[in-house]
Amino acid sequence: VAEELLAAVDIGGTKTTASVSGPQGILARVYQATRKRGDEGTIPRQVEYLVARACRNAGVVRARITALGISTASPFDRRDGHLVVVSPNICGGLARERELTPNDWTGIPLEEHLAGSYPTLRIGNDCITAAVAERLFGAGRGENDLVYVTWSTGIGAGAFVDGHLLTGKNDNAMHLGHTIMSWDFAGQPQCGCGGYAHLEALAAGPAIQREYGASPRQAFERYRAGEAKAQGVVRRLALIMARGLYNVVSLLDSRLIILGGSVSKNWDVLEPLVTGEFYAGFAPLTRGVIFRRSQLDEHLGDLAGLSLVMPEAWVAPWQDHRPWEQAPRQVVLEESAGEEGVGP
Amino acid sequence: VAEELLAAVDIGGTKTTASVSGPQGILARVYQATRKRGDEGTIPRQVEYLVARACRNAGVVRARITALGISTASPFDRRDGHLVVVSPNICGGLARERELTPNDWTGIPLEEHLAGSYPTLRIGNDCITAAVAERLFGAGRGENDLVYVTWSTGIGAGAFVDGHLLTGKNDNAMHLGHTIMSWDFAGQPQCGCGGYAHLEALAAGPAIQREYGASPRQAFERYRAGEAKAQGVVRRLALIMARGLYNVVSLLDSRLIILGGSVSKNWDVLEPLVTGEFYAGFAPLTRGVIFRRSQLDEHLGDLAGLSLVMPEAWVAPWQDHRPWEQAPRQVVLEESAGEEGVGP
Repeated sequence: VAEELLAAVDIGGTKTTASVSGPQGILARVYQATRKRGDEGTIPRQVEYLVARACRNAGVVRARITALGISTASPFDRRDGHLVVVSPNICGGLARERELTPNDWTGIPLEEHLAGSYPTLRIGNDCITAAVAERLFGAGRGENDLVYVTWSTGIGAGAFVDGHLLTGKNDNAMHLGHTIMSWDFAGQPQCGCGGYAHLEALAAGPAIQREYGASPRQAFERYRAGEAKAQGVVRRLALIMARGLYNVVSLLDSRLIILGGSVSKNWDVLEPLVTGEFYAGFAPLTRGVIFRRSQLDEHLGDLAGLSLVMPEAWVAPWQDHRPWEQAPRQVVLEESAGEEGVGP
Repeated sequence: VAEELLAAVDIGGTKTTASVSGPQGILARVYQATRKRGDEGTIPRQVEYLVARACRNAGVVRARITALGISTASPFDRRDGHLVVVSPNICGGLARERELTPNDWTGIPLEEHLAGSYPTLRIGNDCITAAVAERLFGAGRGENDLVYVTWSTGIGAGAFVDGHLLTGKNDNAMHLGHTIMSWDFAGQPQCGCGGYAHLEALAAGPAIQREYGASPRQAFERYRAGEAKAQGVVRRLALIMARGLYNVVSLLDSRLIILGGSVSKNWDVLEPLVTGEFYAGFAPLTRGVIFRRSQLDEHLGDLAGLSLVMPEAWVAPWQDHRPWEQAPRQVVLEESAGEEGVGP
C-alpha cells in the first residue's frame, strides 16, 4: 500500500507556495507569484496547478494526496455555505487602492472549487494555522490556552482556549489587528480596512514608519544606539501592543502568548517593554501569563497549512525529527506557468 | 429508584441563593445575605448550609443530590489546582475599600471545600453560567457562536465559540468589563479594579451616574423625554459599548450577542444606538451579527448554576415546559441562620 501523502498551500498577498509531504518529511516545495488577473476561479486553479507541480517534482502521483491544508490571507465570508476569501489584498473588487489588485473579484471561491478534489480539505487564515503549527511543533507544545500573534506589516492572531481552536462562524476569529484601541477616534490613525484606532494601524510595522519617518529596522537600530526619538516611538508601540494583548487575555484567559512576525524579531528590545506594561494590568487576569518568541517563523509557510490536516500518527515522529529543517529547496515557477490550468 | 436531584447556588456580592431541582422542576429556593465575617471557609460552609436548607424545604434527603452547579462572582485564581474565588467584592483582603467586606480573606476555597461533598461539582462565574443558561433555555437556543453580556452595575460576559464554552486557564475568560477601551489612559476613568479606561468604567451603570449626575433610570427617562444632556450621555455610553462588542466579535467571530442586566433593559433606546455604531465596523467581521435581549434575566439566579450540571436528558423537557416560570417562592433566611454549620 502506498503511503498517505498530504499537500499544503500558503496563499499570500504576493506569493503562493505549495508543498507535498509524506510521513517522513516534505518531498517537494514550489512557489509562484499569487495570480491577480482573470476570473474569480484564478486562484483556486493556481492552487491545483501548484499542487500538481509539487507532486511532479516529488515524483508522486497527484491521486495519492489524501488531504489538502490551505493557509491563506483572509478575512473569509461564507456563500451558499462555502468559505470564500474576501481579502482586499487580493480581491480588486474589495480593495481601497486598486494598483496591486488588477481584478474585480469580490471573493475567491476556494472551498467550493477545491472541495471535490481532495478527500479532506481544510482552510484557515494564516494566523490561525500558525497557532496550530506552533502548538504542534513550535513554541506552544502541550499548551491548551495559547495565543499566537503575528506582529509584522499587519497584526493578526490565532488562539486555542481549553484546547479548542477558535474559528468562529465564518472562520474569522482572532482578527486582533482590527480591534479598536481607542473608543474616541479623534486624532487616531486609519487602518487599511477603513476603520480607526485599530491595533494594526497603531502598532504594526507601518506605524513605526509613519511615526519615526524611517523603516522599522532603522528605528530598532537607533533604539539600541540610544536615540531618544526611536526610543519614544518603540516604547509607545510596545505599550499599545501590550494593552492589545491584555485585552486578548481578558477575554480568553490565555496562559501563553507566542509572538511571531518581523517586528517581533526585535524581541530583545520589545520583551521588557511589552511584558512590563502587560503585567501592570489587572492582576487576576495577567499573573501567570508567559510570553515566547515563535519557533517556526520561517517554516510557517510549509507547516501552517500542513498542520491543519496532519494525521495524529505523524505528529510525534515529526516532533522528534523536525523534518521541516531538512526540507528540499523551494522551486520558483515562472509567473505565467500553469495559467491555462493544471497542464501542461 | 429515587430520581436524581440537582442543587444550584448563586453567590453574589450581597446575597447567595440556593435551589434544589428534580427532573420536573425546581423544588425549593432559599436565599440569605452573603456572609462576610469569619474565616475563609465561611462561604463554602454557607453554601452547604443553604443547600441543606433547600433540601429540607423540598422534603428531600441531602444525600440524593448528585451534582452541584455554582454560579459566582469572580475572578478566580487556582491554588494547588483548586479554583479559588478572588472577588474584591467579597474578599476584604483584596478590596480597595474595606467597608463592605469586613474580613481579611484573600480567596474563597470553594472547590477544595466542596469537591468531596458532591459527585459532580461545577463552578463558573456568573456571566459564563448565564451564557450556558441562555443557550439552553433562553435567547441563545441552537446557537454555537454567541456572546452573553451583562450590562449593569458592572459589565461581564460569557461566550461559546464553535459550540465550545470558553473558560480559559483559570476559568477567567470573558472579563469584558476589564478590557481597555483607550490605549492612552490620559483623562480616562479608573475602574473598580484599579485599571484605567476599562469598558466597565466607561459604560456600566455607575458611568451614567458619574457623567449625568443622576441614576441610570433617570437618565433613560429623560433621554426618552428628549433631554439633550441625557441623550448625549446615553449616546456616548452606547457608542463605547458598541466598540467594546465590536472588539469581542473581532476576536470570536460571534453570530449572536445577547444583552442582559439592568442597563440593557432600556434596549428600546439602546438598540439603534448600539447596533448602528456596531455595523459601522469592519464589514467582514460585523455583517451577519445579530443582537437579542436576554430572555432569562430574572431567572438566571435559578438557572445559571443549574445549567452547568443539568443532565442532557432533562434539557428538552425543561425547554418544552419551562418549569422555572412556576418555581416555588424564594424563602429568605435570617442572616445569622446556619452560622454554626449545616445544622440545626
